[in-house]
Amino acid sequence: MAALDPAALGARAEAMIKALAPISAEPNRLVRLFLSPEHRRAADLTAQWMREAGLSVSEDALGTVRGRVGEGPRLLIGSHLDSVVDGGNYDGPLGVIAGILAAAHFAGKPPVPIDVLAFGDEEGSRFPSTLSSSAACAGAFEPETLALADRQGVSLAEALKAYGKNPADIPQAAYRRGEALGYVELDIEQGPRLEAASEPLGVVTGIVGQSRWRTIVTGEAGHAGTVPMTMRRDALAGAAEMMLEAEWIGRAHDGMVATVGIVEAKPGAGNIIPGRATFTVDLRCMDDALRRAAVGEFETEAREIAAARKLDVAFEHFHAVNATPCDDKLQDLLAVAIGDVGGRPLRMPSGAGHDGQMMVKICPAAMMFVRCRAGISHNPAEYCAPADMGIAIAALIRFIEHFRP
Amino acid sequence: MAALDPAALGARAEAMIKALAPISAEPNRLVRLFLSPEHRRAADLTAQWMREAGLSVSEDALGTVRGRVGEGPRLLIGSHLDSVVDGGNYDGPLGVIAGILAAAHFAGKPPVPIDVLAFGDEEGSRFPSTLSSSAACAGAFEPETLALADRQGVSLAEALKAYGKNPADIPQAAYRRGEALGYVELDIEQGPRLEAASEPLGVVTGIVGQSRWRTIVTGEAGHAGTVPMTMRRDALAGAAEMMLEAEWIGRAHDGMVATVGIVEAKPGAGNIIPGRATFTVDLRCMDDALRRAAVGEFETEAREIAAARKLDVAFEHFHAVNATPCDDKLQDLLAVAIGDVGGRPLRMPSGAGHDGQMMVKICPAAMMFVRCRAGISHNPAEYCAPADMGIAIAALIRFIEHFRP
Repeated sequence: MAALDPAALGARAEAMIKALAPISAEPNRLVRLFLSPEHRRAADLTAQWMREAGLSVSEDALGTVRGRVGEGPRLLIGSHLDSVVDGGNYDGPLGVIAGILAAAHFAGKPPVPIDVLAFGDEEGSRFPSTLSSSAACAGAFEPETLALADRQGVSLAEALKAYGKNPADIPQAAYRRGEALGYVELDIEQGPRLEAASEPLGVVTGIVGQSRWRTIVTGEAGHAGTVPMTMRRDALAGAAEMMLEAEWIGRAHDGMVATVGIVEAKPGAGNIIPGRATFTVDLRCMDDALRRAAVGEFETEAREIAAARKLDVAFEHFHAVNATPCDDKLQDLLAVAIGDVGGRPLRMPSGAGHDGQMMVKICPAAMMFVRCRAGISHNPAEYCAPADMGIAIAALIRFIEHFRP
Repeated sequence: MAALDPAALGARAEAMIKALAPISAEPNRLVRLFLSPEHRRAADLTAQWMREAGLSVSEDALGTVRGRVGEGPRLLIGSHLDSVVDGGNYDGPLGVIAGILAAAHFAGKPPVPIDVLAFGDEEGSRFPSTLSSSAACAGAFEPETLALADRQGVSLAEALKAYGKNPADIPQAAYRRGEALGYVELDIEQGPRLEAASEPLGVVTGIVGQSRWRTIVTGEAGHAGTVPMTMRRDALAGAAEMMLEAEWIGRAHDGMVATVGIVEAKPGAGNIIPGRATFTVDLRCMDDALRRAAVGEFETEAREIAAARKLDVAFEHFHAVNATPCDDKLQDLLAVAIGDVGGRPLRMPSGAGHDGQMMVKICPAAMMFVRCRAGISHNPAEYCAPADMGIAIAALIRFIEHFRP
């Protein structure tokens, strides 16, 4: 194995992050939406870096930039260039940059042919869908997505044409059977566990499954002064009990998280007992059966709380997706590679979605997490230390060296 | 004592309620605001009824209509003509109508001189103040109130002038020392206790004191998928525990009520752990010391909850008013009068505010509650049965007969 210089890799990555950072639709915050002029500029800069790294560059019908080195079945290394509104500079770009620098390390003679992929639609911050660009690479693009419109009423089909693409070419973006040997993605953790463990790198066990629903509690509105406590049917008080139940369920199961992010009481006046309260629950877990059982447990407990308080409760389930486990063998290879660069390879699920969810449809997939400051992401305060980026890229290089299909 | 016909009194009251009901700023719901054209029309109709009842009518500088019979120190019987937005037809008008019909019963020869007062500003639904018209009668009007503006930017002073009044005349609205022997007010209960007890009438022990504050809980926002339950500082989960604590405190003290009517979580997205949550508490009780102790108890418990969850908590107290006890002797007279008409005089505090809070400043005051359907008030569904109105007016007549200064 050739010697590696993580510090130099980190410094180079940091410079590239800083070059991408100002490419935004707004001067004072990062807004880089799918198929926007900023996407175009970021893609062009990425293509330039790929060429400088000795990769041959192409771009598919969804705008994914592909840097290729070597012939025949290949390892895919991907991440994304788009951001959330008011996002950070590392989530996405770091994975693309790491792929380019790792491929560059081999100076045109990688141990396995490589495609570095820069996707454009991971955050779903423009259209009411997400992962459309990796879906196209995985041959899983759903044509009805083309009709979805952004907030300005522009459909995905129209946006693609304005970006110089032809929706008829989308099928050609898909890898052919046997062409993709594996997929690896590197991203900041977007959570606090690596920092808490004082470790720079983690092996992702999979992307958690998710259930999201709205709980609607109905009681009876009333005057805050005239209805005795014993005669109330306070929807919000019942909802508060149920919200704590959701939290308790999340705490009671290892690896599960449950979040109430939105709550509303109606009619919503300080001197009126709420007759109606609604709140969302977002529950995630690697174990799909456990997740479904937890949703059932919540509903049972919420019904009991409602019955005890003479309230009605209903559940509107609006999102459910199964977990995406990462490939065991690739996880182990990542662990070895992390060990090679001096890390202790912590294993952890990803609570957030990633393009790997699509790529797993065509080949074994794995992900590596890099420590980020305070677990902050999707925020201008997002930060990943150059030293951590350098060691991450070094581990990615070792992973490529260890990789066997 | 002359014979009474509660059924006839109830039918007459019902007809008068129906005559006032359509006097609204909007065709499909009741909106009768202080010093509005609808106030003018309602006041004119009230004055006409007073004259028909043999009362001599005047109107003071705040628009209070006064119907007078007899000379010398007098018993005041009052309630209000204004409504909340989308209000009901009984809250307020019933008390004015009852006063007129009770005075009419004595056909110009009441056992004690009587003033029937129709106030215009009990709900506080136009200006950010309330009880200004009864305050003027009680000599407690605060001149700075004149500068307060409604939602259209019209000040109370301007609205009074547009109503044909002169703010310089306000001091003359006040009763002179010794002129008011007592004040009695009749209103629907606006709560469910009389209905639950199957009794038409209740004696009000006083108007509860009230504390209102906002609780602000600060934690740390985070990604709903990536932050483990054990590492969260979820402001809303902490707020939910505190909301239940407020409910528990209300339940733990007899006669106390505590209500959380408004809650908000920020940033307010289903997939983000709330970093900030705010909610209001409205706590009411007849015992001021107990109320203040309960507020302190809440703050202590909320701070403990916050500490256990590594959250910050702050309290913004924006309203506090002491309880207004009703006069014991007048309460007993009301109880006797209710017994005279066949009722069982339940005693209960008023959880809502009333003009009596001002009138108690110049004379002994008492209030009688009348059963309303399902405790509903401040709502188009507000309803009081004619039979209950009739027996209430009969009891008011008996009260006047029993009244001795």
